[in-house]
Amino acid sequence: MAEAIRDLAHIGHAELLTPKPEESLRFFVEVMGMEPEASEGQSVYLRGFGDYQRYSLKLTESAEAGLGHMAFRAWSPDALERRAAAIEASGLGVGWIDGDLGHGPAYQFADPDGHTMELYFETEKYEPPEQLRPALKNQPQRYVGRGAAVKRLDHVNLLAEDVLPNRRFAEEVLGMRLYERIELDDGSESGAWLSLTIAAHELIYVADAYGARGRLHHLAFWVDTREEVLRAADLFLDSDDVEIEFAPSKHAIAQGFFLYGLEPGGNRVEVTTGGRFVYDPAEPVVVWTEEERAKGQAWGVKTVESFHTYGTPPVESPLT
Amino acid sequence: MAEAIRDLAHIGHAELLTPKPEESLRFFVEVMGMEPEASEGQSVYLRGFGDYQRYSLKLTESAEAGLGHMAFRAWSPDALERRAAAIEASGLGVGWIDGDLGHGPAYQFADPDGHTMELYFETEKYEPPEQLRPALKNQPQRYVGRGAAVKRLDHVNLLAEDVLPNRRFAEEVLGMRLYERIELDDGSESGAWLSLTIAAHELIYVADAYGARGRLHHLAFWVDTREEVLRAADLFLDSDDVEIEFAPSKHAIAQGFFLYGLEPGGNRVEVTTGGRFVYDPAEPVVVWTEEERAKGQAWGVKTVESFHTYGTPPVESPLT
Amino acid sequence: MAEAIRDLAHIGHAELLTPKPEESLRFFVEVMGMEPEASEGQSVYLRGFGDYQRYSLKLTESAEAGLGHMAFRAWSPDALERRAAAIEASGLGVGWIDGDLGHGPAYQFADPDGHTMELYFETEKYEPPEQLRPALKNQPQRYVGRGAAVKRLDHVNLLAEDVLPNRRFAEEVLGMRLYERIELDDGSESGAWLSLTIAAHELIYVADAYGARGRLHHLAFWVDTREEVLRAADLFLDSDDVEIEFAPSKHAIAQGFFLYGLEPGGNRVEVTTGGRFVYDPAEPVVVWTEEERAKGQAWGVKTVESFHTYGTPPVESPLT
Amino acid sequence: MAEAIRDLAHIGHAELLTPKPEESLRFFVEVMGMEPEASEGQSVYLRGFGDYQRYSLKLTESAEAGLGHMAFRAWSPDALERRAAAIEASGLGVGWIDGDLGHGPAYQFADPDGHTMELYFETEKYEPPEQLRPALKNQPQRYVGRGAAVKRLDHVNLLAEDVLPNRRFAEEVLGMRLYERIELDDGSESGAWLSLTIAAHELIYVADAYGARGRLHHLAFWVDTREEVLRAADLFLDSDDVEIEFAPSKHAIAQGFFLYGLEPGGNRVEVTTGGRFVYDPAEPVVVWTEEERAKGQAWGVKTVESFHTYGTPPVESPLT
Repeated sequence: MAEAIRDLAHIGHAELLTPKPEESLRFFVEVMGMEPEASEGQSVYLRGFGDYQRYSLKLTESAEAGLGHMAFRAWSPDALERRAAAIEASGLGVGWIDGDLGHGPAYQFADPDGHTMELYFETEKYEPPEQLRPALKNQPQRYVGRGAAVKRLDHVNLLAEDVLPNRRFAEEVLGMRLYERIELDDGSESGAWLSLTIAAHELIYVADAYGARGRLHHLAFWVDTREEVLRAADLFLDSDDVEIEFAPSKHAIAQGFFLYGLEPGGNRVEVTTGGRFVYDPAEPVVVWTEEERAKGQAWGVKTVESFHTYGTPPVESPLT
Repeated sequence: MAEAIRDLAHIGHAELLTPKPEESLRFFVEVMGMEPEASEGQSVYLRGFGDYQRYSLKLTESAEAGLGHMAFRAWSPDALERRAAAIEASGLGVGWIDGDLGHGPAYQFADPDGHTMELYFETEKYEPPEQLRPALKNQPQRYVGRGAAVKRLDHVNLLAEDVLPNRRFAEEVLGMRLYERIELDDGSESGAWLSLTIAAHELIYVADAYGARGRLHHLAFWVDTREEVLRAADLFLDSDDVEIEFAPSKHAIAQGFFLYGLEPGGNRVEVTTGGRFVYDPAEPVVVWTEEERAKGQAWGVKTVESFHTYGTPPVESPLT
Repeated sequence: MAEAIRDLAHIGHAELLTPKPEESLRFFVEVMGMEPEASEGQSVYLRGFGDYQRYSLKLTESAEAGLGHMAFRAWSPDALERRAAAIEASGLGVGWIDGDLGHGPAYQFADPDGHTMELYFETEKYEPPEQLRPALKNQPQRYVGRGAAVKRLDHVNLLAEDVLPNRRFAEEVLGMRLYERIELDDGSESGAWLSLTIAAHELIYVADAYGARGRLHHLAFWVDTREEVLRAADLFLDSDDVEIEFAPSKHAIAQGFFLYGLEPGGNRVEVTTGGRFVYDPAEPVVVWTEEERAKGQAWGVKTVESFHTYGTPPVESPLT
Repeated sequence: MAEAIRDLAHIGHAELLTPKPEESLRFFVEVMGMEPEASEGQSVYLRGFGDYQRYSLKLTESAEAGLGHMAFRAWSPDALERRAAAIEASGLGVGWIDGDLGHGPAYQFADPDGHTMELYFETEKYEPPEQLRPALKNQPQRYVGRGAAVKRLDHVNLLAEDVLPNRRFAEEVLGMRLYERIELDDGSESGAWLSLTIAAHELIYVADAYGARGRLHHLAFWVDTREEVLRAADLFLDSDDVEIEFAPSKHAIAQGFFLYGLEPGGNRVEVTTGGRFVYDPAEPVVVWTEEERAKGQAWGVKTVESFHTYGTPPVESPLT
């Protein structure tokens, strides 16, 4: 495992599927404040003002909501080869593709739960058009402050029939670091928080309440301050394009400040900031018990029920 | 009514009763960050760093928790006389007292629900000792930032067996302005928000779920920013002296940002900021329906159950 | 004086003159985030999302930048009559006009320095169109968060050849309260901060460095948080429509948090929040000395030079 | 260079020298809000509430102010050996020491400018006493919110006679990443911003205006929000223990939000937050020109003069 660590640099982008492409696009542009950078086929590529790449969200028309795929950027061409080989050896590899708009060759695979993922290294640096050129050269794009004005994709939360094999795959094959996890009284794992950096999480697995496979819990987008999360709640409240599911508060696990809503296509999205930074290279994994989780979020807020069950694509009813 | 308006300037102070005087004092000094300004008999007088008077909270040992009394400061000696006369005429007057530490003669009375109240004009301006002298002369006291570092008492929320006569008394006899109220489907009034200034509220009446009389819902203390309310939540969480009852969020009514906790003596306290300003001298009263209230707070947060029922002194069980 | 106090409720609106009407309009709509509510002749009427009236800014094409007029709303028809009579008695009255878009009959006058002012009572309450209807009924308009998303006009700062007679007129004839002032070593007054409410200021007079008359220092627009002022600085920085003159910091006088910029027409505008609240009905006036002012703003920031001299309409050179 | 990257994890601690140990200790405990964790000889070891190790600041009595040493924590025992060997090969090594309170064996060396540095791996995880035990188990210590309540040491800024060889040593021998630098018109380098993580900087070199060697520009301590930086400015203003040198604003380089003050011993300290995150593993170095630097900080604030010249230990006069 040791040598795997840090072959991957960070989450590069995610593809979100929507049965209501126009409404979803309007939401991500007007309410979340992203910029459409390109469109191709049934997809629009969107960026936050802080993305150094051309985009971090690919929004694709589809019969059902859910995750199309997510992609990690490798540290180097060599690191990309190493991880592709490791995945192939694990039996979960699919194979190389030529790339997509904005990035080069990518190695496709599925996590044990069946979510489609990719690794790539070559990428196009964003070059802003004149009207989006920033005043400060260490910033990729002008700040226009439209809507929630999210900066970039922050993390992806996936539902899984069985969390454990997915978490182990992410640790052992992808080389991610496990920072926190939930262990239920029966010994099973119901959640795992993984990262490639000092940030508290980039990939999260939580147990699918319906025992379904391949579903999405949410995509989270970063803003720099808690005030911007509160501001986003006012925008969500006054927008016809989104429903607030879980009002702003602070998570106990990872300590991120959150706001959750449902975009018009039915996918859950988060506006987030904060979260602890993990500087210790030998950080012990924080293990949360069922009893501790019963206390709710950081300040005692009870988690809304739908948060434990809803995902995309929606499933008709519990599996039992 | 018209001529009554603005004879009173603002809420001057409140007296809180506690059966655990040492623990309550520790809470108000260490967690809320107030300064003990004086003590006399069974009482300690406490100030926020922004109080222009010597104190805004009088904390008094007592067999039971609850409100001792609350006091309004009049605009002038004449205004004080006018309001005292009006109260006397209403039949609710008690009579003049010589004053208390820090203020001059006061007229005592009870609101229709039986809460003890006072009016006064003469007051002592706070003179900080050397170690609390501020850098800016337009500020009464140094900012030391201890605990939640509340600035001053902001408002008082009283439970009442019957809201309507109390609200009418506050409007017609005290000359307060009514900004918002709740009217239930049966036509009864379950809450009323009143103020003497452009601030959204200084005195609130809400229906006592147990039909009891003279109880306190909470005292609210002001901070200047929402970030300070969130910070206070972290302090509450990590303190042994207070229990978070209702985590930070935004009220629909009056739009204040809140955090509620129970101090060691059992009284509910709020850390608050924001809230709308009412500049319109002819502002129509906002009337909320039962259906609208069922939507929860501003961002859809459901109000915790105890918030609807608990008050001090506690009562054993519902009246039914 | 005493009886004059509080015949006026608050500043109602201000008219800003601009030689670049299209660019100024674009600035107030896109960068400041105001809504154009109506247009008539050479004027566009603009509102912040928190304005209960139809507008608080009238933007008018003109050969030169500067203040067209500013208006105060009276507490009642009677109060309006009383103040109009007092002004007439002072010799500075001009006379009644029929009103303007959105408000009824107004009494026109000039302050001693020659700035045009009006008093009115009748006003149209804002009725939002469908797409701007808010979720919370105690809020006049939807929050769309465009640009700096200012809530309303907060205060007006006027340059005056001689501050003292203007301040005295505002106190004695208009019935405003004087909260703070600057007295130079030679005994002259170089600044005065006046208000009609507990807010720290609604009208400010500062000495015109060129000894000119009738000029504007700036119009200030309110946001609820310091984070929004910092955010506005990022928007100003990345906008082609405005130049930052004085970066965000905290004033010593009145303690407001500020950001100053020059709009395309050349007028100075402020984005502001905070500032102390004055609850004491007998608040002593805070008098600042020359030596104290030399310390700069609250945290020691030196005031930029142009802030002491520039106003609109610009004057060619100092009077010397 | 490539293989060197990421052998070091982060800055572990810094030792600050003070000729006024009591006053400096009071400042770091009462104003900065750190906890004294241990003391030994002439040193007190202090921690921020977010430090996972026992301390991040060692405060040591000394005849002169300045930096005692700074230390980096390696990723693993092997990484420590690799970096020690590389330093030894560079000729700048001093040798192994047994360790210090709280950490194990360390390899000592000097950077080209003569600042004493150390590398270590073994460290003691902080175990809070009962009264500092936090409510959330993913947090090392209770949040008590005293003073500025800094979370941890964030970065160290060193003055150097010649920036370039120090920056190259940090890159090539220590394996740090260079994110931004200033290149003057004559081609010389006057500043370099280096990091071991996605955070914008952990080690900064800037040119010593006096051409002196081994001096300290400042130590920076982290808070999570800009509001806490503004709050710290109020605390600095009202404290007798610190002088504000540079009021809160935003840096152009690295985009950190800052407040600078001088602690009683004469050393410059910063309270900081924000700053950009660098996710791109192939991030091009941002090179700032003399002309760009002349524009001041992000929002145009001119840098105070002393910031360009003052360091510790102070030097009598410029070298010329």
